[in-house]
Amino acid sequence: MKFESLRGFRDIYPEDAEPRDSMLSEIKRVARSFGYQIIDFPSVEPLDLYRIKSGEELVSQTFSFKDKGGREVTLIPEATPSVVRMLTSKKDLPRPVRWFSLPKIWRYEEPQSGRLREHVQFNADIFGIDTPEADAEIVGLACTILDSLGLSGNYEIRINHRKLMDEILHSLGVADIPRAFGIIDRFRKIDRQEFLDSLTGAGISQDSARIIEELASSRVSADDSEEFLSGLIHMSADLKEYLHRVVSTIRMISMYTASDIVMDFSTVRGLSYYTGLVFEAFDIRGELRAILGGGRYNGLSSLISGQDIPAMGFGMGDVVLELLLKRTNLWRRGASGDRYYVCTVAEEAATASLKLSNDLRKKGVQVVRDLGNRSLSAQLRSASANGCNYAIILGAKDLSTGSITIRNMSDGRQETINIEEFLSSVKG
Amino acid sequence: MKFESLRGFRDIYPEDAEPRDSMLSEIKRVARSFGYQIIDFPSVEPLDLYRIKSGEELVSQTFSFKDKGGREVTLIPEATPSVVRMLTSKKDLPRPVRWFSLPKIWRYEEPQSGRLREHVQFNADIFGIDTPEADAEIVGLACTILDSLGLSGNYEIRINHRKLMDEILHSLGVADIPRAFGIIDRFRKIDRQEFLDSLTGAGISQDSARIIEELASSRVSADDSEEFLSGLIHMSADLKEYLHRVVSTIRMISMYTASDIVMDFSTVRGLSYYTGLVFEAFDIRGELRAILGGGRYNGLSSLISGQDIPAMGFGMGDVVLELLLKRTNLWRRGASGDRYYVCTVAEEAATASLKLSNDLRKKGVQVVRDLGNRSLSAQLRSASANGCNYAIILGAKDLSTGSITIRNMSDGRQETINIEEFLSSVKG
Repeated sequence: MKFESLRGFRDIYPEDAEPRDSMLSEIKRVARSFGYQIIDFPSVEPLDLYRIKSGEELVSQTFSFKDKGGREVTLIPEATPSVVRMLTSKKDLPRPVRWFSLPKIWRYEEPQSGRLREHVQFNADIFGIDTPEADAEIVGLACTILDSLGLSGNYEIRINHRKLMDEILHSLGVADIPRAFGIIDRFRKIDRQEFLDSLTGAGISQDSARIIEELASSRVSADDSEEFLSGLIHMSADLKEYLHRVVSTIRMISMYTASDIVMDFSTVRGLSYYTGLVFEAFDIRGELRAILGGGRYNGLSSLISGQDIPAMGFGMGDVVLELLLKRTNLWRRGASGDRYYVCTVAEEAATASLKLSNDLRKKGVQVVRDLGNRSLSAQLRSASANGCNYAIILGAKDLSTGSITIRNMSDGRQETINIEEFLSSVKG
Repeated sequence: MKFESLRGFRDIYPEDAEPRDSMLSEIKRVARSFGYQIIDFPSVEPLDLYRIKSGEELVSQTFSFKDKGGREVTLIPEATPSVVRMLTSKKDLPRPVRWFSLPKIWRYEEPQSGRLREHVQFNADIFGIDTPEADAEIVGLACTILDSLGLSGNYEIRINHRKLMDEILHSLGVADIPRAFGIIDRFRKIDRQEFLDSLTGAGISQDSARIIEELASSRVSADDSEEFLSGLIHMSADLKEYLHRVVSTIRMISMYTASDIVMDFSTVRGLSYYTGLVFEAFDIRGELRAILGGGRYNGLSSLISGQDIPAMGFGMGDVVLELLLKRTNLWRRGASGDRYYVCTVAEEAATASLKLSNDLRKKGVQVVRDLGNRSLSAQLRSASANGCNYAIILGAKDLSTGSITIRNMSDGRQETINIEEFLSSVKG
């Protein structure tokens, strides 16, 4: 019988698991440097938690089932409902609340490049504050994470605002705005004519449809946005106010990063619950799915608990990030200092080699100790296979003199040194 | 509508999630210091992978279901089958293979103290080598992890050996040895008379049953084990050989740790697939379930893939470990250095405070930046609530002089200092 993992799921060997773990550690470090704290929550939740938020379409894409107690449950397809449930269950949290999490999430969708049925998603949210500063901090955190992974200049941030878009569509005489959002959300997946036909099919005039198409296909800087928009549509006072708010938020974000930040009127985010700023990050070559995305979603806590708590956050999956880091040659394990392979060439030296290994480990050094009765050359091959940059050879003769031989694995040079002297020179 | 997490599942807030994350990081650090590398695998696997190994009893305790494609799948109830599947799927792995993983695992059992329906389990295994040195390294790794978490002296290691027990039971005339193991495994859960009755009910003589009861209730040091055993049973040559092997393994383990290591003949481990040394760690006060457990399981890779690869490993859940660390006052987040709260007391200083926050973060320091238009006293309350040991106040006047005020949150002392001078003095 031959067992394989399920389609859309990954067996991750050390060559990928170690770089991935380094990446996740760095993401956690940056989140904490912004004062965000880690939380965790169940991987299995009542299915109704997602019905209320996202409706049956999302539910059909979940790994949901009846548990042995007959309850409808699901592997979590996203983190936000659980996070908001935790937020609203505790009354005494000092606000604003800054949380992050790193859950696995599951979607029963067709696997494709950048999308699997199981992946790890980093989530960060700030709750209890609704200001451009808070919006900028979340986007700034996202940028600082990408920059700290070495991706500066390899991505762009696309910004939009749901209320600004509401105003624009309103000024163009669009009656069914949620339907128009649904069409704009598909802008990059369908061709120009299909896009226009969808809009006019939704009762939008041909003139307005053309303007929406021009908006959706344009990216403008914050500085140019007012001139750009006023050339296309009538700017009401409300629309100007939303625009100024977005522009000032973008100026603040640009204090966190030197990467490109553009206004992109096709970025509306599929999920219906966003209420303000929305944003996504893409690789600059435009080859991959979104690296991350998020926005302000002030209404969700009311839906889940009846409490009205403003919320802004984003999610970032590990799959697209891994693809991008591999393409930019940044996929590697974190620095771990020197790594030693302790050879055991004489049975009477076994005790001493075990003691030496443990002494080195206590100094924070990584030590692979040979365990078998093997030839020295076999042990040195293992040293290379284990990525050790030094091998330590402790023979029967060395034992009486208290010395060891250290071999540099890159050039094969050997040096014999007193064991205590060596230990005191090692830094982890 | 009010949503709650499912029974046996946890919402983990920062006060527990941060110490837990520090604990898991330390465990990973120690595993790497032994040359073990991280792997990851799916949380959902074909149910047959567990049927073959553990039979229907374990299957009845899984979160298993039919996915939308009609496949029988399950949330993984343990890590070992997935790890062995990964091992046997790749032909070119240099041996021995040293791997660890930190998956969530799920069991549909009645929740109780130390046992939940979902928890994180650390797993470490060494494959491709079957020597006392390898056995000792795995137990030594387990001990070094507990010691590095500060638990030295708070736990004891109980060691036994399946083949040694086979020989003992054989010498006592026991015919159905697996059945006897099943009874011995329940030794600590039933009373003395029920234990004796179960043994005689399994066709074991009263004399042999009494000896098994004396064995199961005794813990002896490695040094005393030969004298102890030879007072109770006839020592065949095979039995002596197994015993010497266990004793020499224990002597090696004691080079990794100063904690107590005892031979415990009631430790047989429930799962049927162990073939050699088995071990468990318990808190010395005997109040909690096992902290960790494992052993040698040489037959499993044959069952899963037809390849015969020796294996030795252990698993350690986060639930009992958290209980023990809390009881010993060792449950705390890792050191993170100074933590700053940047107050914003003048609108014109907002840009400067954002720049200062980002400059500090780049130095690796944790900075919570106030985002609202709030009074200074409200901001200082937030600084305390966020666990910051310093608050930085940047007023309109300071802006022109290039200085900031730093407040020590523990004693309220304030100092005004040049901003550049301050930045160059900060270490992350």
